[in-house]
Amino acid sequence: MRQAGRYLPEYCATRARAGSFMGLATHPDLATEVTLQPLDRYPLDAAILFSDILTVPDAMGLGLSFAAGEGPKFAKVVRDEAAVAALEVPDMAKLQYVFDAVTSIRKALNGRVPLIGFTGSPWTLACYMVEGGGSDDYRLVKSLMYSRPDLMHRILAVTADSVSAYLNAQIAAGAQAVMIFDSWGGVLADGAFQRFSLAYTRRVLDGLVREHEGVNIPRIVFTKGGGLWLDEIAAQPVDAVGLDWTVNLDRARRAVGHKVALQGNLDPNVLFGTPEAIRAETMAVLDSYGPHPGHVFNLGHGISQYTPPEAVSVLVETVHAHSRKLLARA
Amino acid sequence: MRQAGRYLPEYCATRARAGSFMGLATHPDLATEVTLQPLDRYPLDAAILFSDILTVPDAMGLGLSFAAGEGPKFAKVVRDEAAVAALEVPDMAKLQYVFDAVTSIRKALNGRVPLIGFTGSPWTLACYMVEGGGSDDYRLVKSLMYSRPDLMHRILAVTADSVSAYLNAQIAAGAQAVMIFDSWGGVLADGAFQRFSLAYTRRVLDGLVREHEGVNIPRIVFTKGGGLWLDEIAAQPVDAVGLDWTVNLDRARRAVGHKVALQGNLDPNVLFGTPEAIRAETMAVLDSYGPHPGHVFNLGHGISQYTPPEAVSVLVETVHAHSRKLLARA
Repeated sequence: MRQAGRYLPEYCATRARAGSFMGLATHPDLATEVTLQPLDRYPLDAAILFSDILTVPDAMGLGLSFAAGEGPKFAKVVRDEAAVAALEVPDMAKLQYVFDAVTSIRKALNGRVPLIGFTGSPWTLACYMVEGGGSDDYRLVKSLMYSRPDLMHRILAVTADSVSAYLNAQIAAGAQAVMIFDSWGGVLADGAFQRFSLAYTRRVLDGLVREHEGVNIPRIVFTKGGGLWLDEIAAQPVDAVGLDWTVNLDRARRAVGHKVALQGNLDPNVLFGTPEAIRAETMAVLDSYGPHPGHVFNLGHGISQYTPPEAVSVLVETVHAHSRKLLARA
Repeated sequence: MRQAGRYLPEYCATRARAGSFMGLATHPDLATEVTLQPLDRYPLDAAILFSDILTVPDAMGLGLSFAAGEGPKFAKVVRDEAAVAALEVPDMAKLQYVFDAVTSIRKALNGRVPLIGFTGSPWTLACYMVEGGGSDDYRLVKSLMYSRPDLMHRILAVTADSVSAYLNAQIAAGAQAVMIFDSWGGVLADGAFQRFSLAYTRRVLDGLVREHEGVNIPRIVFTKGGGLWLDEIAAQPVDAVGLDWTVNLDRARRAVGHKVALQGNLDPNVLFGTPEAIRAETMAVLDSYGPHPGHVFNLGHGISQYTPPEAVSVLVETVHAHSRKLLARA
């Protein structure tokens, strides 16, 4: 999950200088600054690129903006035959600001921790491209899917190829692992998920380089609400599967065995609890996975802007102390 | 799921006469009229009381209203020690309009189809009582849960006892089956779901009468997003478990065997598809359960106000025709 954000006063200060979220994301020096802020505050084990999943549809010409206090909006939507026909894999030069940020962050990290690059899944990006922004019911994108599946498949195919090229360019620029966020896969029905989300996540994965400069590049896929499809997701060419907090980690580990690592899954709202509750819930997540290798502790969703920064300190300290104890027993 | 609604022009006409949603719900003759409208239009196999899950907290004195085009709002919220201490099981006389509607609907149905009564689960009602309305992130209710679990448990206990009394009064008035909607159970983390949602749904179930006038009253529990906990839900004293559309019915049936019936689970957005797509997706749901008894076909969520009424005709015809074929093979 994104580590930088409005819960950190230093982030708010940099964002004020940048003027907007996209001002931050499009200036490699500012993106570097905010990517490193959480690492300066907490002893985290990895860094994640500061960017947004919607940079790819923006580069396709849809015109991304973030109004103050609201979610993302696209100036153009993709809902009819003409708009779908006009879609193409964008020139990656339009996303050079992302690749420059990756290179700049790698340089600034100087080997301290690895850097994770990321993208949205084709289905998740298509939700925004059709709806024009967030949605409560996904009515427009599902209407298109059930009334014109041919158009939906073309949107997803073009988006998958774009996303593959995008992640490969992040890897070439220095990303040491890549993560695909299928934030809205969980709104699909069983059956539709496999055809409209997982199949195109697979298409992305099949288009990715396996290594860079002789070093393996791990792939992580996180489908929010995808716990029921864990076996099918883990059967893809991935190294780790992200889980949300509804998933029991003990069951999940037993279901996938050692095929993949599991990443997750504390409910970020635990961070509004007392320090005792934060410690107890964090230890419960670690204990549920148990004394086995292959667990990457993470939040099961983005961190709220209202989170007290000191709650994150309690969390990170607990993860380190308790997982050391567990691994000593492994 | 509620069968009556804004997708039906006859509903909109009655609602206009009533002046508001609560005007409909609180007048037994109008509630009867709209409950029967879908049955006059479609050959449905059961009727469901026209009401709202939030009538119970309203009777607790929280002041429910529905602003035009917006979701429900409470005038008072329950977030601090004093507000929690003030909560009590409401006098059921305040909900007499619901029980009168049940009696009136039963009389109007005259044995045509059975009538299902319903309530929200304690956790789902508590979400609204703490948040004051709908929520994207459930931050306030989860903050209370993780910082003052003692207060949360008291809200849930009082609400569970209220809901038991409420359903028993619906049964006494003539409801022939009861359904508990745990619409927001799926936002909880594994572990928290069992402690804060399922335990109180159980408390409701334990407080319910088993039969009325010598006839068994089936209980249905529907947890949206609860597919991962199906075995734990099915282990409660319930006759049927409702499923959302993310759940594979074949897997679900094999998991619970004949312990409970399964109710579900078409994505209501399928109703925006072509007639061919509606038929294909509906048959896919029926086929996934297979030629076995114990399946109650249903939508996996409320029907959208934008649904074309003729799409529901295609759905109902397909369910009847295709399930007859399947059962002939059983």
